[in-house]
Amino acid sequence: MPPPRDPELTRQHIIDVAAEEMRVNGYKAAGLADILEKAGVSKGALYHHFASKQDLGYAVYEEVFIREFLQDWDLPLSSDEPIDALCEWLLTCAATATEEALSMGCPVCNIAVEMSGLDEGIRTRTVAMFEQLQSRISDALETAQQRGQVRSEVEVGPVSAFILAALQGAFANGKYGGDIETFKSIVKCLANYVASLKR
Amino acid sequence: MPPPRDPELTRQHIIDVAAEEMRVNGYKAAGLADILEKAGVSKGALYHHFASKQDLGYAVYEEVFIREFLQDWDLPLSSDEPIDALCEWLLTCAATATEEALSMGCPVCNIAVEMSGLDEGIRTRTVAMFEQLQSRISDALETAQQRGQVRSEVEVGPVSAFILAALQGAFANGKYGGDIETFKSIVKCLANYVASLKR
Repeated sequence: MPPPRDPELTRQHIIDVAAEEMRVNGYKAAGLADILEKAGVSKGALYHHFASKQDLGYAVYEEVFIREFLQDWDLPLSSDEPIDALCEWLLTCAATATEEALSMGCPVCNIAVEMSGLDEGIRTRTVAMFEQLQSRISDALETAQQRGQVRSEVEVGPVSAFILAALQGAFANGKYGGDIETFKSIVKCLANYVASLKR
Repeated sequence: MPPPRDPELTRQHIIDVAAEEMRVNGYKAAGLADILEKAGVSKGALYHHFASKQDLGYAVYEEVFIREFLQDWDLPLSSDEPIDALCEWLLTCAATATEEALSMGCPVCNIAVEMSGLDEGIRTRTVAMFEQLQSRISDALETAQQRGQVRSEVEVGPVSAFILAALQGAFANGKYGGDIETFKSIVKCLANYVASLKR
């Protein structure tokens, strides 16, 4: 695919091509030569936009993978009835899961596992993303609690972290265990747990 | 440390030394030369007991790491009051966790993450271990349910998988996020969830 002429579009084009490489091959294995060839840009053009391969990697991680990951949560967390919306979202997630998608895993989790011990920039971005997501869940539950939709004794902060951890565990299980029925039953249990928070 | 003269003890000695190497350096990075030197045995002696490095790796994974991992659960799962025992065990786990232990992670989880995509033997052993553990939790809950200690509507199979997934998620969070307070609050939430199963 030839690169666009506009510099901002060229930057985005390089990011998109690099994201596809990293999605398929992993973070470290995505080669700069392949990215340049597929993007149809010169090394000079790439280094005009990114100081290093690491810099490009961070841009892909933040601007593509983390953004996608967080956007997935927009629907349930922006609802006026977040408990019902979260339950429905989880049940849809269980109903639509495929073995292929499960064994592939999500790019954020894959890169976090691959790189967190090796690259401090990836680790801090991952931690910040989970903190942001946990705050958003917690805020949604707190608003719902103030509206009288969530039982008053529910501690929204720890409960949000627990929901997120259980979901991470479900996906880890699906990825490494590869048993889709177990994945589905874990996510349904989590939906039951979320429903149990309701007043 | 010089190797014992008894062949069975020599085999165990090699496994113990290799386990320490893998615990510190990871599965792939544990070098055969280092293991031989630290165990004080010849290559011939090692190949007398193990067909290959992979064969040694499987023995360490099964006979040391998986065994340790499963033994940890003996206390709560053999109790006559498994719900109370699981809660207490989880609360102790939260109370005694250290940042160092969390960031180190457990060898089974580390090796599963490192090797499941690369080595089918590790993947199948990990899956079998989680299935066995889930069955044990499920059996303990079922017995407790028959004794009237667990609410009759609780589906013990899915709930067991959910407990295990939430705990995995908590540890993954602790390892990659490194925030011990979040880890503790997730594990306490899980203890609350387990307590909620009680009749």
